[in-house]
Amino acid sequence: MARSDHGVTPQSEDFSAWYNELVPKAQLADRGPVRGTMVIRPYGYRLWELLQAEIDRRIKDTGHQNAYFPLLIPESFLRREAEHVEGFAPELAVVTHAGGKELEEPLIIRPTSETVIGEMMAKWISSHRDLPLLLNQWANMVRWELRPRLFLRTTEFLWQEGHTAHADEADAMRETMLALELYAEVARDVAAMPVVLGEKTPGERFAGAQRTFTIEGMMRDGRALQAGTSHFMGTNFAKAFGIQYTAESGQLELCHTTSWGMSTRMIGGIIMTHGDDQGLVLPPRLAPYQVVIVPIGRDEQWDAVVAAARDLAARLAAAGIRVHTDEREQLSPGFKFNDWELRGAPVRLELGPRDLAAGTAVMVRRLGDAGKEQIALADAPGILAGVLEEFQEFLRRRATEFRDSHTQVVDDWDSFTRAVSGGWALAFHCGQPSCEDDIKAQTAATPRCIPLDGPPETGICIYCDAPSAYGKRLIFGRAY
Amino acid sequence: MARSDHGVTPQSEDFSAWYNELVPKAQLADRGPVRGTMVIRPYGYRLWELLQAEIDRRIKDTGHQNAYFPLLIPESFLRREAEHVEGFAPELAVVTHAGGKELEEPLIIRPTSETVIGEMMAKWISSHRDLPLLLNQWANMVRWELRPRLFLRTTEFLWQEGHTAHADEADAMRETMLALELYAEVARDVAAMPVVLGEKTPGERFAGAQRTFTIEGMMRDGRALQAGTSHFMGTNFAKAFGIQYTAESGQLELCHTTSWGMSTRMIGGIIMTHGDDQGLVLPPRLAPYQVVIVPIGRDEQWDAVVAAARDLAARLAAAGIRVHTDEREQLSPGFKFNDWELRGAPVRLELGPRDLAAGTAVMVRRLGDAGKEQIALADAPGILAGVLEEFQEFLRRRATEFRDSHTQVVDDWDSFTRAVSGGWALAFHCGQPSCEDDIKAQTAATPRCIPLDGPPETGICIYCDAPSAYGKRLIFGRAY
Repeated sequence: MARSDHGVTPQSEDFSAWYNELVPKAQLADRGPVRGTMVIRPYGYRLWELLQAEIDRRIKDTGHQNAYFPLLIPESFLRREAEHVEGFAPELAVVTHAGGKELEEPLIIRPTSETVIGEMMAKWISSHRDLPLLLNQWANMVRWELRPRLFLRTTEFLWQEGHTAHADEADAMRETMLALELYAEVARDVAAMPVVLGEKTPGERFAGAQRTFTIEGMMRDGRALQAGTSHFMGTNFAKAFGIQYTAESGQLELCHTTSWGMSTRMIGGIIMTHGDDQGLVLPPRLAPYQVVIVPIGRDEQWDAVVAAARDLAARLAAAGIRVHTDEREQLSPGFKFNDWELRGAPVRLELGPRDLAAGTAVMVRRLGDAGKEQIALADAPGILAGVLEEFQEFLRRRATEFRDSHTQVVDDWDSFTRAVSGGWALAFHCGQPSCEDDIKAQTAATPRCIPLDGPPETGICIYCDAPSAYGKRLIFGRAY
Repeated sequence: MARSDHGVTPQSEDFSAWYNELVPKAQLADRGPVRGTMVIRPYGYRLWELLQAEIDRRIKDTGHQNAYFPLLIPESFLRREAEHVEGFAPELAVVTHAGGKELEEPLIIRPTSETVIGEMMAKWISSHRDLPLLLNQWANMVRWELRPRLFLRTTEFLWQEGHTAHADEADAMRETMLALELYAEVARDVAAMPVVLGEKTPGERFAGAQRTFTIEGMMRDGRALQAGTSHFMGTNFAKAFGIQYTAESGQLELCHTTSWGMSTRMIGGIIMTHGDDQGLVLPPRLAPYQVVIVPIGRDEQWDAVVAAARDLAARLAAAGIRVHTDEREQLSPGFKFNDWELRGAPVRLELGPRDLAAGTAVMVRRLGDAGKEQIALADAPGILAGVLEEFQEFLRRRATEFRDSHTQVVDDWDSFTRAVSGGWALAFHCGQPSCEDDIKAQTAATPRCIPLDGPPETGICIYCDAPSAYGKRLIFGRAY
């Protein structure tokens, strides 16, 4: 099959190639000089800033405070929680020399910060009055990736990590679910990415957690993307780092802790939830440019059209719309149309001399059946605000329909393998890790989660016929 | 001499001890587990976020775009610019192992990003149409510090670093000065820290720069703090990394580049510019809490007073004032007054049952001669907005007067040594690095900068009597 106008392999031909070609072509990110690292270019970073602002506001509104903890962690810290070190050891980057000398103890570049934050929490918390302690940080992490992919799996990534300490289990569980709901809201309402909220099976838990919860989105190739996780640690880290408090009774008690994170991986999810053969499709709430104006005119017409485009841009900006005027004189309108389709701008406005004379512009949505539409320049801010809202909702609905039509309730192995080859299967499982492994070996599918809103139901395991665990069906799918 | 109520050593007794005790006591930051690292606590981080927002807005308003470049840099990159590697080699932290293996080439944790950004700029720039390329990133850096101090010199610090590429020297020099002016505006108008703009002497230049410019503030012990720097690189990095473009003439040309940075060090500068024996004094534009309300009342009065305090807080917040109500029941009003003085809240409002009955509150500024003042609750938002503006201006004026009264024009060695023992000296210098070294060995003072606005003047070197260089007096002082 031929490539599209933009030189990106079609999704249907090779989804992976589509993704790998699109990310640099759309100027979201490039590979860094060190294998597995990523350079986030201004267009991609602006998207990240807009996503950050949405997450950060919700984190603050729910009573958390931002702080900053060190990048470098003593190697011995990681060993204090046995499952934690076992889970992360293969991915660590180690500093052995600094200041011209070999260090006495090697330092780890943080792969996650439970250990160093646990150490500090133990110093700060003494009384029940210090609880809950609700912290968050925005920071870079390093995990050595064997199969790196831009945004999805990079050796260094950016994220926020919430870390909280509570007096009891109930309060810590409330927090764990609050963070999960926060992530689901951001995914659905901001990224237009419908997600399933669920719990991970024991085999897929975070290293050191008692329970791990996840939001899972479906990409346009039917695979699942874990887009955010929230962990209930019980007293595991409190024991390892001595996070204790004096209760009202005077008794010394262990805290219950949580942690939760959402990362630059989410950008990969946005690309794969909405993009098509023409390129990116960005949800308006995260698009760096929600509207791109392309002035059209030769020679003596150019200046007048550009002046009108700038005036229109100023009026749209005053109405709170993120707008960009493409004034590159050396490029044709057709090239620019393709370029902004590739880069996923939700709406394009074409403005030529005839439009100008008529007091109109031609509006083109990035997706949908509306085609080209003439709008009056005078009404443009109001019209576009409405169109952007509708477009945001259109993307969410389209993604929801896609996911629902690619999810099947299955009770036999043949249906299961067919379902996970192009989407998700809702199936019973026995709960045995070895059975999960067998399913993965045969189909590449893993249990994505035990969905929170799944109806209570029992049956027999889709693979081994043993009685089902969990009291409901699991979602299985291939995952990123 | 006795300690103050808050248990902080007085400035006059030991300025350094005052600083080292105050930073953790005010809950701005703690030492991290690895020597030289810092944990920025929520109160300190909020200050940083407010400063970041002021810097970031100005960076974007002047046409720069944020991006993100990798933490890890191949060791070979640093060697490509000879002066650069020589300057940074002693401070580097080196990753030798990752993913369970020894790396073929060691990786450096970025001490600054000229090299990796230069590498990427070379890929992105091809034509004169790609210029200027105006980038900025917010990121963490690691430089191994032998004498670490919270905020001022930490092994890891946070900053923004602007990196730009230009077609010619004139445009790059304009950019270098634009960044310097931007920093000076933030220091003066936001941090209430008057600064001198100047150029560094060759001995104090950034490693790899052709010219380095600085803003220098005076701390309350008379020492200088370099609070931001802007570097003109000429074509040094363009040559080392192949940053070239095709000019309109068709000719291949080298770019001229700049870089500039402002960091968490600035927080140390704010502490030492405004703080006193009672603790921090925060400029309102950066104070996490501009107004702290202390409700006062026992038992059955408490609920009514707290309710009124919350109502007042809501009205102040609605007027755009950052306000906090201190509802800690177990602590006395007197303790809270001291606590918020220590933590530098610009204005405190005391609200007791009698105030409530009279419809007033007692207002106390953190500094100045105004004493306690009764204000009407009904008028509080308007009154406080004005008081905060005045307080901001008061701090700037006070710091300017302090600096000016501790700066002396000197022409003989005795006056010079006296001047730099408690402030700055404006003196002639021969321009010889070895003479700078001799002055430093004898007085601990260094040339802080050649002030941009110094009047043209010549004379003989304050130390060696050789004819003066630079055509004006230099500022000498001891520095952080």
